[in-house]
Amino acid sequence: PPRMSNGVNGHHNSSEGELFLSEAFKVILEEAVHKATDVKEKVCEWKDPEELRVLMDLELGDHGESHQQLLQRVRDIARYSVKTNHPRFFNQLFAGVDYHSLTGRFLTEALNTSQYTYEVAPVFVLMEDVVLRKLRSLVGWSEGDGIFCPGGSVSNMYAMNVARYWAFPQVKTQGLWTVPRLAVFTSQESHYSMKKSAAFLGIGTENVYHVKVDESGRMIPEDLEAKIVHAKSQGAVPFFVNATAGTTVQGAFDPLDRIADISERNGIWMHVDAAWGGSVVFSKKHKHLIAGMERANSCTWNPHKMLMAGLQCSVFLMRDTTNLLMHCHCANATYLFQQDKFYDMSLDTGDKSIQCGRKVDCLKLWLMWKAIGAQGLANRVDIAFASTRYFVEELKKREGFQVVSEPQFVNVCFWFIPPSLRGKENSPDYQEKLAKVAPVIKERMVKKGSMMVGYQPLDGRVNFFRMVILSPQLNHSDLDFFLDEVERLGNDL
Amino acid sequence: PPRMSNGVNGHHNSSEGELFLSEAFKVILEEAVHKATDVKEKVCEWKDPEELRVLMDLELGDHGESHQQLLQRVRDIARYSVKTNHPRFFNQLFAGVDYHSLTGRFLTEALNTSQYTYEVAPVFVLMEDVVLRKLRSLVGWSEGDGIFCPGGSVSNMYAMNVARYWAFPQVKTQGLWTVPRLAVFTSQESHYSMKKSAAFLGIGTENVYHVKVDESGRMIPEDLEAKIVHAKSQGAVPFFVNATAGTTVQGAFDPLDRIADISERNGIWMHVDAAWGGSVVFSKKHKHLIAGMERANSCTWNPHKMLMAGLQCSVFLMRDTTNLLMHCHCANATYLFQQDKFYDMSLDTGDKSIQCGRKVDCLKLWLMWKAIGAQGLANRVDIAFASTRYFVEELKKREGFQVVSEPQFVNVCFWFIPPSLRGKENSPDYQEKLAKVAPVIKERMVKKGSMMVGYQPLDGRVNFFRMVILSPQLNHSDLDFFLDEVERLGNDL
Ligand SMILES: Cc1ncc(COP(=O)(O)O)c(C=O)c1O
Ligand SMILES: Cc1ncc(COP(=O)(O)O)c(C=O)c1O
Repeated sequence: PPRMSNGVNGHHNSSEGELFLSEAFKVILEEAVHKATDVKEKVCEWKDPEELRVLMDLELGDHGESHQQLLQRVRDIARYSVKTNHPRFFNQLFAGVDYHSLTGRFLTEALNTSQYTYEVAPVFVLMEDVVLRKLRSLVGWSEGDGIFCPGGSVSNMYAMNVARYWAFPQVKTQGLWTVPRLAVFTSQESHYSMKKSAAFLGIGTENVYHVKVDESGRMIPEDLEAKIVHAKSQGAVPFFVNATAGTTVQGAFDPLDRIADISERNGIWMHVDAAWGGSVVFSKKHKHLIAGMERANSCTWNPHKMLMAGLQCSVFLMRDTTNLLMHCHCANATYLFQQDKFYDMSLDTGDKSIQCGRKVDCLKLWLMWKAIGAQGLANRVDIAFASTRYFVEELKKREGFQVVSEPQFVNVCFWFIPPSLRGKENSPDYQEKLAKVAPVIKERMVKKGSMMVGYQPLDGRVNFFRMVILSPQLNHSDLDFFLDEVERLGNDL
Repeated sequence: PPRMSNGVNGHHNSSEGELFLSEAFKVILEEAVHKATDVKEKVCEWKDPEELRVLMDLELGDHGESHQQLLQRVRDIARYSVKTNHPRFFNQLFAGVDYHSLTGRFLTEALNTSQYTYEVAPVFVLMEDVVLRKLRSLVGWSEGDGIFCPGGSVSNMYAMNVARYWAFPQVKTQGLWTVPRLAVFTSQESHYSMKKSAAFLGIGTENVYHVKVDESGRMIPEDLEAKIVHAKSQGAVPFFVNATAGTTVQGAFDPLDRIADISERNGIWMHVDAAWGGSVVFSKKHKHLIAGMERANSCTWNPHKMLMAGLQCSVFLMRDTTNLLMHCHCANATYLFQQDKFYDMSLDTGDKSIQCGRKVDCLKLWLMWKAIGAQGLANRVDIAFASTRYFVEELKKREGFQVVSEPQFVNVCFWFIPPSLRGKENSPDYQEKLAKVAPVIKERMVKKGSMMVGYQPLDGRVNFFRMVILSPQLNHSDLDFFLDEVERLGNDL
């Protein structure tokens, strides 16, 4: 009998399957790549949830559909999805498309293997090792360890767990009951994954001490010292300091050298959450922002953000040379990590992970790197900084735009003050009214589909926009358009 | 200026990028799909790590490469990767290819969004909800909650954390210091992710009580009761019982109804790790294997295994209707989950997750389901059982093959006893010699590239093969070949 592509006897065979895949590829290329990156198309086609539910006919039934119906579904999914590849998508810390990375992602999916053993992933085990080594060397570590994780939040959890194991290895076997209360330190503007990590690892969110920041969002080292003293006075044991290189909202870089001094002096594991800002190491011009990172014990870095490697691509890197990662996480499952294999079993790195099956996340980054080189990646970073500079200058020339703080990175936080509020800074309801501006402009832009950008309140400051400029596919006219469009959408407010 | 596809000014623009992607797609289709599924090709082209490292030229440099060089790299990666799509790949709990799922995966990659908010993933937020609801209804839950996770191990961690929050919500804020020692119960043959979960969550591996199993790997309920009593007598608080539906090695189904009785009586959260066996619910004929699962509080289920949805596709499902998942994991980040949005903000489900960016894992399953219906998925399961039956019968007809236990599922555990050992069962070094057989046969098959299957020791039983039969693309001649090949490779041992 012909080989089936699915469980329905005789219905589809592999040549039909390949045909479908080829035709679907054309639709994907046209709708989800070509049109999705076309500035003349909408960045999103907004539908209310109720409407979209009906339009998409999402319910799943007993019977299958025809080839043509399925192709139409591919088209519809692309149509109603947000085009994160679009030059006017500024809503998250990822944007744009890299065609080589995308190729790597397709190849990953077609090969469908798991990263746990050399046996089933020979190329990718070696490749992960090379990529991690290269990233470590950029950080400044000639030796060390690391692993690709499903996102920066999980990478941060790895850091906290490994640090805990380093300080108190018995927690792995006996749990937290046998050790004193542990304390974590991170800035007020650090990513929320620190709180999630502490909760998940059984440490508790109240044992996360939030260190104060300066106006632009950088951790104040004096307050870190004070918080450490304070925690100790409460009987807690400080074991983990998280410094952020590129905060989520303001794009701030914590003073790493100062934080390293304090961590070293106190014998505390220092982690750098460089999920967002880590990519500046490629740039000769900007890598000073992370000076001191090489003194940390570990870091998180997401190539899926600034380098455009595509979701998910996140690494956890360590300076450790004692196999701490393996000791901390291993469970020695004999069905997977047999000890009588015929090859070097240290290549079966899966037991370093908290996962079992682990998606191959290195290939997309590797292929992109092979395509444009470290030089190309450095240019990407430099272009993003230059575009940001242009944007900030243009913004400052316009009436009604006000930056929240001077940008250090490619995040630009600003208020748009509509004409009705200008000059009214001292009226009692000014803040209240200003808080309502960004949500309305956001709603209008989304419904129109002209662009997407995020907003949020922060630390007493009412709703402001966070513009993120990272894609090298952007040009000046996109940035001018952005400012014009904010004015168009907000001038009547 | 033309829009760049990468950071190198003027070097590649988007039409060049699309051209590369199209050409690479052809290579991928040919090398990683067409040839990879061709029984006349090798399942793997074995190379020693040292050799492969050189062949692949993995190191990353400063400069980019040409279009042609990059296409060659795509070809080489496919060539030296293991073909998990191949009809003679039996090495893991996944195998084969589904062309519709693969299409869904390509579309996911091209759209490159994150599952956290309706705003950036309108289609996928609604789709995840529909898929989870449908899967829950198959389990027997008309209401409930759930989430897609990066693999079954992480889904199991969710279960343990949610159960802990349900029993002791203060752990989220105050950590484990304020509650008594907690105890987890799971069978000796359950997946190692239970141990990893307990370690990661700060509970400790020694607080995992391993319940005895019968010969075919099913949990013995009487021993569960005894272990609960024992744990209590040691001052621990039992809060979590994990039952397995389809164990990793033997494919055993724990007696869920009996375990539910015990869990209910003791007020303990019952979780079912149905990562591997959950898919039997599609089959009228075989779903009795998981009778009682509807009485559990939660379950893990990996459509990337038996349903062939592709890595990663794993769900954590709950019966809970009190929003426990959200309460347990939320951190209320204001930059992402603004409370003044213009749409129903309950659709921003991202805060239920321990991740921030979260890959879209529902589309591949959804599209495959639309393509073949629940009926097609049911057939897939039934075909796998039928193929397994055929295989076991053929195996039993042959001299020198001996099953470890009678298969309940699609795992077939067996020893191959080479002629030199037959009839020597009582000689003192029989076990020692038998233990060495599987590793040698494995080495030979991999180096030859003819097929791949795993082996392991288990609980006093020396190395045996674990054959896994799941792909509907298999036919009888593949299974006959398998048995013949084991004989060919092992007859001289
Ligand atoms: C029974 C069982 N549970 C959980 C898992 C873990 O699933 P994953 O590999 O997706 O982490 C496996 C993996 O084989 C398994 O067999
Ligand atoms: C500073 C920082 N750290 C960590 C993360 C989490 O990364 P991920 O979304 O990959 O979990 C983010 C996400 O935006 C971030 O901005």
